[in-house]
Amino acid sequence: MEKSYQELCKRTAELIDLGTAGAVLGWDQQVYMPPGGAEARGRAIATIAKLMHETLIDPRNGVLLEKLAPMEKTKGYDSDEASIIRLARRGYEKAVKVPPEFTSRMNVLQSECFDIWLKARPANDYALVQPTLDKLFGMCREYADFFPGYEHPLDPLMDNHDYGMKASEIRRIFTGLRKELVPLVESITACEPADDSFLRMNYDDAMQLDFGKRVVSDFGYDFNRGRQDMAAHPFTIGISINDVRITTRVHPEYLGSALFGTMHEAGHAMYEQGGDPKYDATVLKGGTSIGVHESQSRLWENIIGRSKPFWEHYYPGLKKEFPKQLGKVPLDKFYKGINKVQKSLIRVEADEVTYNLHVMLRFDFECDLLTEKLSVAELPDAWNDRMEADMGIRPPTDADGVLQDIHWYNGIVGYFQGYALGNIMSAQFYDAAVKKHPGIPAEIAEGKFSTLHSWLVENIHRHGCKYTANELLERTTGGGLDIGPYMKYLKTKYGELYDL
Amino acid sequence: MEKSYQELCKRTAELIDLGTAGAVLGWDQQVYMPPGGAEARGRAIATIAKLMHETLIDPRNGVLLEKLAPMEKTKGYDSDEASIIRLARRGYEKAVKVPPEFTSRMNVLQSECFDIWLKARPANDYALVQPTLDKLFGMCREYADFFPGYEHPLDPLMDNHDYGMKASEIRRIFTGLRKELVPLVESITACEPADDSFLRMNYDDAMQLDFGKRVVSDFGYDFNRGRQDMAAHPFTIGISINDVRITTRVHPEYLGSALFGTMHEAGHAMYEQGGDPKYDATVLKGGTSIGVHESQSRLWENIIGRSKPFWEHYYPGLKKEFPKQLGKVPLDKFYKGINKVQKSLIRVEADEVTYNLHVMLRFDFECDLLTEKLSVAELPDAWNDRMEADMGIRPPTDADGVLQDIHWYNGIVGYFQGYALGNIMSAQFYDAAVKKHPGIPAEIAEGKFSTLHSWLVENIHRHGCKYTANELLERTTGGGLDIGPYMKYLKTKYGELYDL
Repeated sequence: MEKSYQELCKRTAELIDLGTAGAVLGWDQQVYMPPGGAEARGRAIATIAKLMHETLIDPRNGVLLEKLAPMEKTKGYDSDEASIIRLARRGYEKAVKVPPEFTSRMNVLQSECFDIWLKARPANDYALVQPTLDKLFGMCREYADFFPGYEHPLDPLMDNHDYGMKASEIRRIFTGLRKELVPLVESITACEPADDSFLRMNYDDAMQLDFGKRVVSDFGYDFNRGRQDMAAHPFTIGISINDVRITTRVHPEYLGSALFGTMHEAGHAMYEQGGDPKYDATVLKGGTSIGVHESQSRLWENIIGRSKPFWEHYYPGLKKEFPKQLGKVPLDKFYKGINKVQKSLIRVEADEVTYNLHVMLRFDFECDLLTEKLSVAELPDAWNDRMEADMGIRPPTDADGVLQDIHWYNGIVGYFQGYALGNIMSAQFYDAAVKKHPGIPAEIAEGKFSTLHSWLVENIHRHGCKYTANELLERTTGGGLDIGPYMKYLKTKYGELYDL
Repeated sequence: MEKSYQELCKRTAELIDLGTAGAVLGWDQQVYMPPGGAEARGRAIATIAKLMHETLIDPRNGVLLEKLAPMEKTKGYDSDEASIIRLARRGYEKAVKVPPEFTSRMNVLQSECFDIWLKARPANDYALVQPTLDKLFGMCREYADFFPGYEHPLDPLMDNHDYGMKASEIRRIFTGLRKELVPLVESITACEPADDSFLRMNYDDAMQLDFGKRVVSDFGYDFNRGRQDMAAHPFTIGISINDVRITTRVHPEYLGSALFGTMHEAGHAMYEQGGDPKYDATVLKGGTSIGVHESQSRLWENIIGRSKPFWEHYYPGLKKEFPKQLGKVPLDKFYKGINKVQKSLIRVEADEVTYNLHVMLRFDFECDLLTEKLSVAELPDAWNDRMEADMGIRPPTDADGVLQDIHWYNGIVGYFQGYALGNIMSAQFYDAAVKKHPGIPAEIAEGKFSTLHSWLVENIHRHGCKYTANELLERTTGGGLDIGPYMKYLKTKYGELYDL
């Protein structure tokens, strides 16, 4: 039994090593690769993916997992051994249901569609990418059908990003959330708009980056086990538990971009850096779901990084760095400016109140596209109608509408809900931490984050993939997903800001 | 037949893709990896190496190669098809002779010895690494025995770096070279030493780098298909034909380090950038041998970069950049300074006249260690005696002696001769280019390198691994390896410099 377990570990370690190779190839591709390298890099990444798939679906894994079923039972759900077997089984059972031929075809179509989107977006030419996107959604339906018995074709896709989540559950949550959010947005946008013009001035690039690096070091991001580089589309990448890198972009005319972007990515990175080191070469490495990952990035970016106590401590230092831009801006005005709420077209630029409406739109369309209630041809008009209804603005171009996000064009469907789940969970986790350690907000006002960070490591990070999102919620809050703390957070914060 | 050939190409392409992954993992490890990443990176690199070995020795490759023997014959030696089959066969036949168990054991011992050396060298503690080095040379003998029938146990090892070369041939060449070099060194070192104190002043790091980048761009190194980063031990890495990167180190108190180092690495990189693009995913990608690789780096660094015509063009610009340091240094003095000849202890800092004596010492000791005429225990004393005899200086510490080079401690034996072969071939190739295009030296004096560069691409670079070093010499000079042009180059250049 022990021998079979060792063999399983060895096999999954090889998979993790290939993942490391893929991660470094991907990081380099987006960060330092010279333009000429693109073609060969695409080939290398595809080969690593192919080898990973072959390693994963090796029938010998099935034999081992069967042998190890008794061990999984004996050791108990919470043990590392049972968890490793459970996660390996989950990965194996899903992978073997998908024919390798389909996976290669899907990979090819994904790259193809992505390349077309890269041209279509700046050209504002949806028609260019529409036929390929249509094929991609067709293949997503085909993928779902490898998992018969689903409630909704989105479920098997969503399961890859937020394990165990179902469209029906998301719909239930979003319905409740929407009912609360829409009136909040309405009452805020009825007020005098916040002034954030002081954020939109010339800020020295290097100084912006330095300030951000100091903040995330204070948060607890470990630069000895990570690094920061520039990327056009910022991301975090966990190469190993002791090598988790963040990327950032700097806007010379907008302070918010690098500052909050760095906090956001550091939140993701601290999650992965906080994994138990003994999980590094195992399937327990990394974050458990997109939702939990986003809960960490949004907790640090929004709940901490856009909070009054945080800026009570950091604002004097920021003012000192940028006296010309901020010298005459009092803290209250700055605080309101970084929390400006407005109806807008672009998801990634949205504030924390309207953000979830952008997510809901995408979720609804994913459902309808997969059930063919909506066609890819009808999508741009549907998008624009919905934006007009939700935001009161009709996108002037598809580049500001249906073409704005990379996800679908890269074949990623069933992912967007994770951003909203992250918002909801960020408040639940933060509440649980403060309940346990009521001194946290006061510590934040002193630029101290170790109590909060330690609580997150202890209760979330160190477990890696061992527990699902729901299990983590259950362990930390005693209940499941609940929009209560999040809505309370928004209503309190924005109620004060806008005198509602 | 055509189908078998396509299958062979597909299989070797996968090998190349894994090589790309390994190259990026290695580059990142030396250039940007945070300290924490070391352990997981070691594992990932080992797994890629293991997969490459498994892919290479797959028995199906043997079947394919047998099937393809008639095609190799029909297509003719110079054809791409025959060359791909030939190179694939060469790699396969060597790899299958070595048991995978041996390869893993060797990899482990190599890393182990390397890690010990990293501590032993700064601590000047040969005894610390001696037992492991002893084991490594033992394994090198074991490796040689997988290739029975060799003339000398160094031959199978050398064959991995300079294909087809034999210890007896190197010995013959080195004997002739030594007979000519020793009196030249003696007559130069009997003269007043050159003054190079002006190179050893404070030079701004960024300006040093900028100047180097301009020079190598002028040479023909393509930054769209490469990049330059900093590394403690500079190297060039060919990730693909269109992504060949150089690394450099800058010494703030010595102008020569970054300047000539950058030219050297660019020479290597231009060789790989010059490969026929259609070879990129094939076994014909890359350089054919260490000797030819070094011929390219040394040609650009020494024959061009340390020549009078080159500096006639570039020196005014350099003086303008560094007026404080060079303002009062006339061209002649600068030229003599960058070509200062002296007996010295450290190979990598040696001038082009004494350099080969350092190589010969290492070659002789490799031969004697492998035949057990010399033991690893006796090596430090033997090293110091030989340095005293050759250079007139006894290394004061082993760190300045036997511990200075990484190669042996990393299990790399049969490599050093390539540096000297590179010196010899650099002069042969340059002579052949000038014979064809007598205007080259005049072009260099105008900062123009395209005629030389094009000749190198056409006659050497574009062929990748298709031809061996000897075949390239035969094709370009009509003969084999010949120390004549190299000695003539040294005698003319240094005869003029030192009025001999």
